[in-house]
Amino acid sequence: MLRSELRREHLAAFIFTTSDPHNSEYTADHWKGREWISGFDGSAGTAVVTLKSAALWTDSRYFITAANQLQGTEYLLMKEKVEGTPTIAEWLGRELADMDDKSVGIDGMTSTSREVEHFITDLRRQGGITLRTNFDPLSRIWTDRPQVPDHPVFIHPLEMAGEDTGSKLKRIRRALREQHADGMLMAALDDIAWTLNMRGSDVHCCPVFVSYLLISSTAATLYINKEKLTPEITAYLQRYGVSTDDYANVTKGLKNYFEYNILIDPDEVNYTLSKAVCREVVSATSPVPQMKAVKNEAEQQGFRRAMERDGVAMVRFLRWLEGAVLSGETGQNSGATEIAVADKLENLRAEQPLYYGLSFDTIAGYEAHGAIVHYEAPPESDVPLQQKGLLLVDSGAQYQDGTTDITRTIALGPLTEEQRRVYTLVLKGHIRLQMLHFPDGASGTQLDAIARQPLWQAGLNYLHGTGHGVGCFLNVHEGPHQIRMEWRPAKLRAGMTVTDEPGIYLEGRFGVRIENMLLICPAEETACGRFLRFETLTLCPIDRRPIQLGLLTEEEIQWLDCYHQMVYDRLSPYLNHSEQEWLRQQTAPLKDIHELCC
Amino acid sequence: MLRSELRREHLAAFIFTTSDPHNSEYTADHWKGREWISGFDGSAGTAVVTLKSAALWTDSRYFITAANQLQGTEYLLMKEKVEGTPTIAEWLGRELADMDDKSVGIDGMTSTSREVEHFITDLRRQGGITLRTNFDPLSRIWTDRPQVPDHPVFIHPLEMAGEDTGSKLKRIRRALREQHADGMLMAALDDIAWTLNMRGSDVHCCPVFVSYLLISSTAATLYINKEKLTPEITAYLQRYGVSTDDYANVTKGLKNYFEYNILIDPDEVNYTLSKAVCREVVSATSPVPQMKAVKNEAEQQGFRRAMERDGVAMVRFLRWLEGAVLSGETGQNSGATEIAVADKLENLRAEQPLYYGLSFDTIAGYEAHGAIVHYEAPPESDVPLQQKGLLLVDSGAQYQDGTTDITRTIALGPLTEEQRRVYTLVLKGHIRLQMLHFPDGASGTQLDAIARQPLWQAGLNYLHGTGHGVGCFLNVHEGPHQIRMEWRPAKLRAGMTVTDEPGIYLEGRFGVRIENMLLICPAEETACGRFLRFETLTLCPIDRRPIQLGLLTEEEIQWLDCYHQMVYDRLSPYLNHSEQEWLRQQTAPLKDIHELCC
Repeated sequence: MLRSELRREHLAAFIFTTSDPHNSEYTADHWKGREWISGFDGSAGTAVVTLKSAALWTDSRYFITAANQLQGTEYLLMKEKVEGTPTIAEWLGRELADMDDKSVGIDGMTSTSREVEHFITDLRRQGGITLRTNFDPLSRIWTDRPQVPDHPVFIHPLEMAGEDTGSKLKRIRRALREQHADGMLMAALDDIAWTLNMRGSDVHCCPVFVSYLLISSTAATLYINKEKLTPEITAYLQRYGVSTDDYANVTKGLKNYFEYNILIDPDEVNYTLSKAVCREVVSATSPVPQMKAVKNEAEQQGFRRAMERDGVAMVRFLRWLEGAVLSGETGQNSGATEIAVADKLENLRAEQPLYYGLSFDTIAGYEAHGAIVHYEAPPESDVPLQQKGLLLVDSGAQYQDGTTDITRTIALGPLTEEQRRVYTLVLKGHIRLQMLHFPDGASGTQLDAIARQPLWQAGLNYLHGTGHGVGCFLNVHEGPHQIRMEWRPAKLRAGMTVTDEPGIYLEGRFGVRIENMLLICPAEETACGRFLRFETLTLCPIDRRPIQLGLLTEEEIQWLDCYHQMVYDRLSPYLNHSEQEWLRQQTAPLKDIHELCC
Repeated sequence: MLRSELRREHLAAFIFTTSDPHNSEYTADHWKGREWISGFDGSAGTAVVTLKSAALWTDSRYFITAANQLQGTEYLLMKEKVEGTPTIAEWLGRELADMDDKSVGIDGMTSTSREVEHFITDLRRQGGITLRTNFDPLSRIWTDRPQVPDHPVFIHPLEMAGEDTGSKLKRIRRALREQHADGMLMAALDDIAWTLNMRGSDVHCCPVFVSYLLISSTAATLYINKEKLTPEITAYLQRYGVSTDDYANVTKGLKNYFEYNILIDPDEVNYTLSKAVCREVVSATSPVPQMKAVKNEAEQQGFRRAMERDGVAMVRFLRWLEGAVLSGETGQNSGATEIAVADKLENLRAEQPLYYGLSFDTIAGYEAHGAIVHYEAPPESDVPLQQKGLLLVDSGAQYQDGTTDITRTIALGPLTEEQRRVYTLVLKGHIRLQMLHFPDGASGTQLDAIARQPLWQAGLNYLHGTGHGVGCFLNVHEGPHQIRMEWRPAKLRAGMTVTDEPGIYLEGRFGVRIENMLLICPAEETACGRFLRFETLTLCPIDRRPIQLGLLTEEEIQWLDCYHQMVYDRLSPYLNHSEQEWLRQQTAPLKDIHELCC
């Protein structure tokens, strides 16, 4: 069907990116076109279909999943950042080498301005391939395409948001003036939710709602489907000078924007809308992600409370898991499977006050499945847990006062020496990053190697990032800062959340990942400047049984013992007596344990 | 004089950058216009003069020097990367706020294409300031301006270069084709010297010669003043298809370049020349710095031999220094001063075979002078050394088989506890980086924090880079890779040289810096990829007396002892008996020393 549409439109190929008109990392089903056309359902990837071939590019997190899901199709798997993998433009240059009319399509509404500009430049260099952006073949061939969601929106209360929309709009307008812009088009759904202190449920696991926000120096308009609004919401918005118009009218709104110039972030706004602007465009980074990333006092307190509830759920889960695995006969399969583990954890979280849902689908991978970075057990590959080896559980929840993200790798019984060594080295990197002091304003790229060094020394490495920001009852992946190998210029500042999640994945064997969420805090000010440090937000024991004590320094052991003491002190008030007793054992000093068992 | 020229040209201000038409870090005297107009002689800085004010921007290495040299002038010192310092455009925006005709000048011949484009964008945003690039006021007002140098050039022999010019041109043309370019304009003097296996002496401490090299798919032309050439050199060049033309004819050469397109590196080629191109420009990073940075086997062996000779000179220097300081009465001034130290070291190096000159002016800073990052003792501030405190000596030489760069900080007698602590933490960072294994292709930015971590934990930091590449009988600072906080995307590869030089500078008190040159080597290949490690090239004892042993780990102590053993083994064959004995003591295991003296 696609190829006959392409022929009719005289297109030699079509590029399907993974995004929506708002450059969301996770999108509403309506925009899962790349998944629909390829069958690959990972959160990152680009499918390209020519008249005679097809290929899919994705990153290391999804190499195994994508290979499985593409098996039996004509899609070639293109492993990004692996030597020898061509870029999309290079591949298209070769595939279309013998064609005369080399025109390729991409949907300008679901790709950012920056992406499309890069494709235009790169494709031109491949024998002059041109790019067409105003055609969406999915609108013709995807007959059962889901609708754009129209779930109702709701207000995020001030006591949790900590700053009202009037104050936020004032700060945004001041920042725009500093960038010599009168207004901006906000397209990122979490930026809009943060600015307006509103939430929704249009996107799986992300409490955002589909809309655009057009801000001028004196007014603002929220472009949103009217079904989502109540009179109460409309009145609330009017109080801050925000009017509403239909979602589809945003292009008209841009054409009627009459101030001198407008800020468009080329990494946020889609290509089609950015080209619809009639005024002068200030092409610059939006000031909003930086503001949203620095959590205020109310948000910080919300995170701490949410972590206590999440920690209680995690402790109950770990205790349940221990029993479930032990209930099987020794050396035999237990009753628990990967899917049962994920379901149990979700149910325990759902019991907690202010629970709103998961912040992402739980990853529970046993042994070899733990080596698949973004594994989600499909029923046909679900495996029962045995009384040995490692179970990796990466999970999180949305609470109305904070979002959580935690990974633990748990020994279900005897481990190999290699498993213990890798576990200890991952833990060592994890602890080193948490112990770090660093200059105020450092970037996450500068910190990344601290978590990797113990692994590098042993010839180990992971290809994903070490950490990302986390929203406050918003997206679990939040910018602008990240701790990763690739350059991220955003400065780390006190008040930002960030995860600390090194890991090692040995294909076909096992995976280890240990993740806490951290809050950046002031440390000290000296003749050499201001320094920052981390406060650990996540409250949950880290399995000590796999640790090879000799690989940790005294300082690292001390850090772990202090952390466990804090976990016990903060969680035990919410636990019953037998749970307290279990947690006390799990959080006892490392050397006591090792004297007992080694 | 400048202001009357500006008025005549209807310019409101002029920007003097620190460079020449080749974007050299160190320039021939002819192009030291910023130094001439401001009096500040550091290697980095930008002077801006308006009709009524003046300011000079420079980086942290030069804050103290610049403050001294600008004292009593109308120049304001603008400290780069310090909070509150305006950019040049912001400052000009304020200074020219009340003027109608806001036109500012810059010499397009001595600024890169990238720099000028940035100025154009930034100044336009400051109330529409325009930039004029075709006027050089210095040609009218700098009456005793030195001539463009015309020293003769000479051939760098193949047994040292390791690859002939024919092979290098072939590799460059292949790389250009991969970037879809037919040719390139090479402007960087060290790239030209490397490509042609020729050297010169036009720039202080850098064995390069002033010229341009225009390469097409079939031919190449060296634009160079004819006085520099001999018939032998002309014949040598013809052998590789390289013709010669006068230096001033490069613009004509660009206009006569008739192939389809030409690669211009916007960070290398000056603005005026890049605008003179009539063909399509491929604006991309030059492939040459990356090739030049990876040393071949002959160059690596040359470095190792040069380091042995440099190490012998350093050992003789350190031994002389010990005697010179002790020869004074106890607690009194010794006969030695900072300048005497620099002179002695230069003389000892000059005794070595294949010595060609210094690779940069020796920095010898005693106590508070050691806290001035790029200190060069002027006669009026020269101080005698006492039998206490720290002397920082950062120096290097050009040998025909390799360039050296080494820093040692030497205890001349009793130290404060703070001096010992800072010294040990700097050493710890220095050792940690040398011990590092890291993934093949990592960037220097990713490695930088490894050297800083021990300092950060103690609230200490330095604002300069941690390391830079070093040329092979070429510039002591060589790209494209660096180890520093700012993003440098160039990948680290086996065969590259890089320095390891953390430091701490406590203004008005003392400075510590410890620097070795390293060679990047393959380490191991595992399931997680290829890993690299460092071979230490520099051969010279590191002063052990200041070390606080408790701050080093067992591994770090072991590294230092092994390093010292290697220094002794490699240098002692070239030393006489009493020198050997002295070196044996200086390189004895750390714990033996501490048992003796503590």
